[in-house]
Amino acid sequence: MRIRVLVSYKDSVLDPQGQTVRNALLTMDYNFVKNVRQGKVFEIEIEDLSDEKIKQVIPELADKVLANPIIEKFTWEIIE
Amino acid sequence: MRIRVLVSYKDSVLDPQGQTVRNALLTMDYNFVKNVRQGKVFEIEIEDLSDEKIKQVIPELADKVLANPIIEKFTWEIIE
Repeated sequence: MRIRVLVSYKDSVLDPQGQTVRNALLTMDYNFVKNVRQGKVFEIEIEDLSDEKIKQVIPELADKVLANPIIEKFTWEIIE
Repeated sequence: MRIRVLVSYKDSVLDPQGQTVRNALLTMDYNFVKNVRQGKVFEIEIEDLSDEKIKQVIPELADKVLANPIIEKFTWEIIE
């Protein structure tokens, strides 16, 4: 099975990388761009687990290892 | 409108960050984890554009700015 976890800064946290990308796009005349936020994506291949187990364990490991819960938020989904 | 672009290393490219995360998870007894690949996610807020324009312009800017096409691949989708 494959799980995708998306980690991004909380909305209240400044995102200088996203701002830099936005500014680069604007200087290249992609002036329809209003805002850019950059984050991380993890694609995790795991052994087959029950849905219940996945719902327990993926948020747990995302919270402990993949994201810093003080400044980041995450979402996850089963992709395969 | 909001566009999500996922950028990750091509499968043939080593991913030391993903390996480090995998090793960390294994030492924490998440031993159902088989592999981890880490990438970047960009959430781009744009003015309303036609589907046709989006299909032209998003791959173009992803290729020029968000990803390094030598070692990275990307996918994108409209999320809002």
